[in-house]
Amino acid sequence: MSTPSQTFDSMWRDLMPVGRDATSGGYRRFAWTRQDHTLREWFAAEAARRGLDLTVDRVGNQWAWWGDPDAALAAGRPGIVTGSHLDSVPDGGAFDGPLGVVSAFAALDALRANGFEPDRPIGIVNFVDEEGARFGVACAGSRVLTGAMTADRARSLTDADGVSMAEALAAAGRSAEELGPDSETVRRVGAFVELHVEQGRHLSLPEVDQPLAVGSDIWPHGRWRVRTLGEANHAGTTRLEDREDAMLGFAAAVIAARRAAEQHGCVATVGKVAVTPGGVNAIPSEVTGWLDARGADEDAVRAVVAAVTEVVEEFGGLVVEDSWTGSTPFDPGLARRLATRLGGIPVIGTGAGHDAGILANAGVPTAMLFVRNPTGISHSPEEFATSEDCLLGVEALTDVLTDLAGAHS
Amino acid sequence: MSTPSQTFDSMWRDLMPVGRDATSGGYRRFAWTRQDHTLREWFAAEAARRGLDLTVDRVGNQWAWWGDPDAALAAGRPGIVTGSHLDSVPDGGAFDGPLGVVSAFAALDALRANGFEPDRPIGIVNFVDEEGARFGVACAGSRVLTGAMTADRARSLTDADGVSMAEALAAAGRSAEELGPDSETVRRVGAFVELHVEQGRHLSLPEVDQPLAVGSDIWPHGRWRVRTLGEANHAGTTRLEDREDAMLGFAAAVIAARRAAEQHGCVATVGKVAVTPGGVNAIPSEVTGWLDARGADEDAVRAVVAAVTEVVEEFGGLVVEDSWTGSTPFDPGLARRLATRLGGIPVIGTGAGHDAGILANAGVPTAMLFVRNPTGISHSPEEFATSEDCLLGVEALTDVLTDLAGAHS
Repeated sequence: MSTPSQTFDSMWRDLMPVGRDATSGGYRRFAWTRQDHTLREWFAAEAARRGLDLTVDRVGNQWAWWGDPDAALAAGRPGIVTGSHLDSVPDGGAFDGPLGVVSAFAALDALRANGFEPDRPIGIVNFVDEEGARFGVACAGSRVLTGAMTADRARSLTDADGVSMAEALAAAGRSAEELGPDSETVRRVGAFVELHVEQGRHLSLPEVDQPLAVGSDIWPHGRWRVRTLGEANHAGTTRLEDREDAMLGFAAAVIAARRAAEQHGCVATVGKVAVTPGGVNAIPSEVTGWLDARGADEDAVRAVVAAVTEVVEEFGGLVVEDSWTGSTPFDPGLARRLATRLGGIPVIGTGAGHDAGILANAGVPTAMLFVRNPTGISHSPEEFATSEDCLLGVEALTDVLTDLAGAHS
Repeated sequence: MSTPSQTFDSMWRDLMPVGRDATSGGYRRFAWTRQDHTLREWFAAEAARRGLDLTVDRVGNQWAWWGDPDAALAAGRPGIVTGSHLDSVPDGGAFDGPLGVVSAFAALDALRANGFEPDRPIGIVNFVDEEGARFGVACAGSRVLTGAMTADRARSLTDADGVSMAEALAAAGRSAEELGPDSETVRRVGAFVELHVEQGRHLSLPEVDQPLAVGSDIWPHGRWRVRTLGEANHAGTTRLEDREDAMLGFAAAVIAARRAAEQHGCVATVGKVAVTPGGVNAIPSEVTGWLDARGADEDAVRAVVAAVTEVVEEFGGLVVEDSWTGSTPFDPGLARRLATRLGGIPVIGTGAGHDAGILANAGVPTAMLFVRNPTGISHSPEEFATSEDCLLGVEALTDVLTDLAGAHS
């Protein structure tokens, strides 16, 4: 019989080459592509190998059940679900998503090896399109599932080549008509625990130095467009005093965002810029920067945006909110239960979005387990967690499932 | 018989609709396009209407001669040439280029109306591809003509659609083989006077307030790539203290460039930016900004670039020189002669490049005449000069040609 370490390694090796870019070493696993199809087949095969029942909901999320979720629901003891996603950002890392799915199968193997007899069904989920790398909306699979995004909007989203999600579904052999909220599937989930690599380095800090943590909440976060205006003119012949150079306000906004983030204990990033007219010898008439700001405290994040707005308005520009999500707490009782069960490990918030947050907002009792990231790097080929920490994660997840799906629960 | 004002207006009206974008109101007259062809036909027709001899050199520049330039050259009295170009930047103005060509024809008409009998031939030139809007290199027509750019390099330049200049020439019915330096054509030019709308607002300043000026020189100018480096990472989960955000160094460079330009009496512009990876939720790993810096004094321009370099290097970035052109003086004796002849009008430098600068560098005695621009706006649909000032320009050019091509010259 294989050890959890062996089954983990074997699954990890199978996934390693799928969608890996030879040049960057990063992953390109986008929803409803050939790479995604291969990953879905892998998931179905792992479920079949373990005798699990595979169901696919109206959105295309895959669920592998040990036990009958509908009978359990009828009996008032709905199942315990774990898992994550298998898609990636462009040139993403190997851990963001797959670690949670592989750990789920490995934990189920460990439960069985321990002779565990579940009192509730246990499900493993692969959420589709978590990163939103292809169609632009993160957590699309769980959003449509729970009704947080309408099927009409999802169908009409387009990728960089102008292919709509409806067309992509059809090309992948799925019916776009079927797409829609699936309350039957959601009701089966008595609780959801998502294991995920940490995407910062809180657990690696010398003063913390812990392999695992439980999630408390997803930070409030939003996106704003910072737009400064000027007047297009000749870069060589227009005197400084006659210029309206939109780039100056943009630069001031970048610096103000960083300063305000420091002051208010938040993070702020300007990762995308567009310049009009964009010629080397033309003074910019318009610069748009996309500001991403997040923090543990809503008021603090709002204060960062206010500080940037003040500077931008001094330059005659404006700040427009593109999206805003308030704090998303996970189930506090569940978090306490997990942290206690796991020996009093830290409970931390996160600045990243997850399907677990979407489920929590839909009223499902939800928890997250984070595995230490030594560098904190994520969404990059350099994303990493040690084998030792990953196996501690599997052990913790096994322990949590034993607790939540056990007879005493 | 038409007045100079009437012939000027008539030519201006003919050119007005050619290549004008209905939406922006700006001009899109790019080398070797249909629009350019229409403009070249117009030039040929204006030459024919006046009985001038049209020649086209190896590069495609058009020359309309009153008198025999080769006989004059053999007699040691080479011709006097005026003119400019008819192409435009994207969404450019009506005056940059065409004002010099239309004024040349109008001045020739005025000379004839005055009964002037030239002692040297007078030529009117339409330089092809002055703006470099299509193939990226400014003054391509005069550069290849004088050997400042090789024919091989010109032929291999490509436009945004990947069409090479060689292919564009073939499509326009010209032989790309023929392209090359044409010393025979250059030798015919005893002196070149280019009339041009001012592209700044020196002449409009209350303390100057003059309709015309003579050019002294083209300012030293260059382009640099300002490259700052960071580390791609998750915008939500990476603590400020763990970040290497390339955007911060870029913003500091923009501000440093402006400050240094103010200190050293130069102009500096960052009009183009590229961000890697360029995602809204990714910390930039690399930002490249293109810096355009110019000024009357070479050391001052160098000091601006040094100041930017110092800041960029503090952020672990670097500054790479893409191009540098030292000061290009026009013929000082010719400038003095024009300024005196025109009643002591100002002699000013310019930050813009012109075919006149390329000819000056090739050893041709060269001068420029600038016509007041009330707003200073150029390379924009709002570029403007009053009819009154334009006619004063024609009058001045007529006077200058009378002087330079007259019997006493």
